[in-house]
Amino acid sequence: MSNRLGHCSYGKSRVRLTKVTRHAGLHEIRELSIAVQLEGAFAASYTLGDNRQIITTDTMKNTVYALARNHPITAVEDFGLALAGHFMENFDHVSASTIRLNEQSWQRMVVDGTEHPHAFVGGGSEERTSVIKRTQQGSRVESGVRGLRILKTANSGFKGFLRDRYTTLPATDDRIFATLLTARWRYGEGSVDWNHCHQLIRRTLLETFAKHKSLSVQQTLYAMATAALDSCTSIQQIRLAMPNLHHLLVDLGSFGLDNPNVVFVPTAEPYGLIMATVRRG
Amino acid sequence: MSNRLGHCSYGKSRVRLTKVTRHAGLHEIRELSIAVQLEGAFAASYTLGDNRQIITTDTMKNTVYALARNHPITAVEDFGLALAGHFMENFDHVSASTIRLNEQSWQRMVVDGTEHPHAFVGGGSEERTSVIKRTQQGSRVESGVRGLRILKTANSGFKGFLRDRYTTLPATDDRIFATLLTARWRYGEGSVDWNHCHQLIRRTLLETFAKHKSLSVQQTLYAMATAALDSCTSIQQIRLAMPNLHHLLVDLGSFGLDNPNVVFVPTAEPYGLIMATVRRG
Amino acid sequence: MSNRLGHCSYGKSRVRLTKVTRHAGLHEIRELSIAVQLEGAFAASYTLGDNRQIITTDTMKNTVYALARNHPITAVEDFGLALAGHFMENFDHVSASTIRLNEQSWQRMVVDGTEHPHAFVGGGSEERTSVIKRTQQGSRVESGVRGLRILKTANSGFKGFLRDRYTTLPATDDRIFATLLTARWRYGEGSVDWNHCHQLIRRTLLETFAKHKSLSVQQTLYAMATAALDSCTSIQQIRLAMPNLHHLLVDLGSFGLDNPNVVFVPTAEPYGLIMATVRRG
Amino acid sequence: MSNRLGHCSYGKSRVRLTKVTRHAGLHEIRELSIAVQLEGAFAASYTLGDNRQIITTDTMKNTVYALARNHPITAVEDFGLALAGHFMENFDHVSASTIRLNEQSWQRMVVDGTEHPHAFVGGGSEERTSVIKRTQQGSRVESGVRGLRILKTANSGFKGFLRDRYTTLPATDDRIFATLLTARWRYGEGSVDWNHCHQLIRRTLLETFAKHKSLSVQQTLYAMATAALDSCTSIQQIRLAMPNLHHLLVDLGSFGLDNPNVVFVPTAEPYGLIMATVRRG
Repeated sequence: MSNRLGHCSYGKSRVRLTKVTRHAGLHEIRELSIAVQLEGAFAASYTLGDNRQIITTDTMKNTVYALARNHPITAVEDFGLALAGHFMENFDHVSASTIRLNEQSWQRMVVDGTEHPHAFVGGGSEERTSVIKRTQQGSRVESGVRGLRILKTANSGFKGFLRDRYTTLPATDDRIFATLLTARWRYGEGSVDWNHCHQLIRRTLLETFAKHKSLSVQQTLYAMATAALDSCTSIQQIRLAMPNLHHLLVDLGSFGLDNPNVVFVPTAEPYGLIMATVRRG
Repeated sequence: MSNRLGHCSYGKSRVRLTKVTRHAGLHEIRELSIAVQLEGAFAASYTLGDNRQIITTDTMKNTVYALARNHPITAVEDFGLALAGHFMENFDHVSASTIRLNEQSWQRMVVDGTEHPHAFVGGGSEERTSVIKRTQQGSRVESGVRGLRILKTANSGFKGFLRDRYTTLPATDDRIFATLLTARWRYGEGSVDWNHCHQLIRRTLLETFAKHKSLSVQQTLYAMATAALDSCTSIQQIRLAMPNLHHLLVDLGSFGLDNPNVVFVPTAEPYGLIMATVRRG
Repeated sequence: MSNRLGHCSYGKSRVRLTKVTRHAGLHEIRELSIAVQLEGAFAASYTLGDNRQIITTDTMKNTVYALARNHPITAVEDFGLALAGHFMENFDHVSASTIRLNEQSWQRMVVDGTEHPHAFVGGGSEERTSVIKRTQQGSRVESGVRGLRILKTANSGFKGFLRDRYTTLPATDDRIFATLLTARWRYGEGSVDWNHCHQLIRRTLLETFAKHKSLSVQQTLYAMATAALDSCTSIQQIRLAMPNLHHLLVDLGSFGLDNPNVVFVPTAEPYGLIMATVRRG
Repeated sequence: MSNRLGHCSYGKSRVRLTKVTRHAGLHEIRELSIAVQLEGAFAASYTLGDNRQIITTDTMKNTVYALARNHPITAVEDFGLALAGHFMENFDHVSASTIRLNEQSWQRMVVDGTEHPHAFVGGGSEERTSVIKRTQQGSRVESGVRGLRILKTANSGFKGFLRDRYTTLPATDDRIFATLLTARWRYGEGSVDWNHCHQLIRRTLLETFAKHKSLSVQQTLYAMATAALDSCTSIQQIRLAMPNLHHLLVDLGSFGLDNPNVVFVPTAEPYGLIMATVRRG
């Protein structure tokens, strides 16, 4: 029988990097985890074990550290574009270079009421993300957040849904709405102020979540995505994934107690998962 | 500005299920985690908060348990097809139904030299997986394994690779080759003996890994994929993802000791990641 | 042969609870994970399968939720004392009741520049902890934090250490000092303002970490513990555990680049682990 | 105020090691994670930043690798004793040396019906553990297993328990009994065949779990511990911790279906936690 190689790529993942920028009297810190994946004329390594065209994944790792030395890394997008460019510009046989960057945030510690110049507190599960894909046709930049835990205790209901023989869920006007937000938006052509856009979109997502009178997770997701698109003309589309991290009202009736939306069990599984992409007009 | 809803879907994830089948004197057990995702005429829930067409994710969960009651679940694929069919056949406004099933294995405990009828030992990180996607055009079944940890201590080298200014990796004729295999193969039309195919492909992947004289992870991956295709004519393509879980040889020279491939540091990050799809001719 | 039952206890772990307190126009939220462990006259259940004295772990869970209904839970310590008291006061055959509480923090979301009354952002890996042990002799309260990620980029060195044949570590005047702090302090007798003490000790630990000119992790740990004891007379001792989450300076010399403490690899393993208890005088 | 240093120790954790032993035509592999903790005359490092007595944690790591080069590591206990001895014998100011070893198992791959000489499959979540504590008084060896997932679908009930106002659990004659076993036994004086004892105790624990007609988790735990003590005279006591990983029977009555112990939801939280030590008579 004959078989043929389809889509293939290879690279290095979890290349972790801490960069310290030392201004006089003030240090800045960035902590990234970077993954590189390359596509191109690598078939001979798969089919023949001929490695002559293989840029080793160890070399990719070294390249990340070497380029980080002099790159300012003011935004993950900038550094990702530099890395993607490096592999495309130095190797004719690379046809696509994809760089995934996840940034863990550090906040300045507040000491005696002011921000400390070189001490930091870790920022939790939220990560700033970016995926840069560069081909011979150019670069595509998608950025976002993941692991952003948000919750609201009012203005969330769910009713009027379809009922079939397997439906037992009661309708509700008042439930806890909790999610672990993943957002990913695609930038258009032209220059972008990455950090400004990131802050603007992130803030818009959160504020819309807070203010929305939610009739369903779907509706709030759509409102958040729409507001994000409206807040920043540099992006063309945005995709949100919102798990519904259910908080179950505890039935205390057996114990002679009421429970007017006071005591809940937060649950990890199962969870609803609502996803959608919204595009500019 | 006007925006429009693009691709959207929603569902329930991590619906966990243990099914016990009680034969006289012998119990069988299956433990699954199931995710349901539906696509269809759900736009009004996103844009208007109109939930009349929404099959709630709680109902999806109930449906999984209700259908599990009488379905034999002899293979995850069978049960996935039944679930995907349920949503398509009962709801005209559902255009696609995707069921993801992950099975954790349990082995019979061996007691006094024989397999015990109702006691089991958990099977580790390996999961059997299946993704069933049913649309109006029919069903597509992709199955596989994930989390399958394998390692070989001989017949693995890596040399002759490209060198640039950032390359420091030494060539080697003898390294540890360790990976956490993810495989996913696509079945063609026609009836399939799911369990037989699964066992055949899994065994072929492992045996090829063991026997292959590896010149690169890429080459071994391709050999494994090719052998899997050859072993089972029911599948049309297979995709493998193989992280290279590096084992670093420890330099003991400072302590007056040699280290002829005896003492290694197994590492979790960074890791190489090699992926490819191989299709039947 | 004869054997005898030694120390035994049993209970329920990971009882998760979200409590919403609804003031007019302002919601408060607390999210706890609680574990109950009881000791007492339970030997017959172990040795004979006689369960008459067994308070089921399901009942423990129900008790947590029932007591949460009307308890204000202004501090985890208060609620823990109430739970520990419940089991001791209602069951003569319980000799010790240990309640472990871990609180995940939620911060109010800032919307349009002000704190939102009912929307929250999750607070990361840091947890506030408390362990209440009540026996017939009274109650002991130990509280703390865990998972508090902190890092400083200046004022940390390590030199002058012992050297033997296996020592290769270079001395340094300037390294990154990163840890995931666990602290646990023991309260004395008398009434305590739990929340005030918690804030005071937490702030003192962070500020001391930031300001200390560190000659070793050991020295900084001791300075932090001492300052904490000095900040709050309600506590009698404090124990700190500080993993040294090494940040390795990358050698860029092969690439013709210097690296004046700019580019580091943050590592997860192996890690140093420094622990000590400091007691009031 | 004056404070004083209480109990302190420091060391290196997660020192990971893979050792390959190459016989002609047959390779053996051991994968360990090792933690070293030392106690002794280290107070000056804490109180003064005087590191002259500090054996660095980096040196501990190097020592593990150097000693692994020529040690056969036929059992984790042997290697742990060698490591604990190294620090006590080479440094007068070390008063206690504690070595924790966790071994992840690898099974030989079966290829063409026979065990392969150098290919292995990972063994899941179960780890073999050992804690060696050496002081000037001698060595104490405690060994065990952790992460051993076991389940039985028959011969497990729970009834006749205490009922109070918060008890809602129904009695049952037939439930799933699932746990993630942690066992830790203490060896006595005298020479021990570590591997033989380990296999004997592990097998006895499993077989007793399988055969026991369980009236409570407590009773089965005690039966397992007692049988383990009886199986191996080299151990003096054994401690077991058994979470009760609840499998909830799904109520299918709303859907017109019965559920005669067929469909369950396996849950991760909350969980019961039963612990006891049993000592030789």
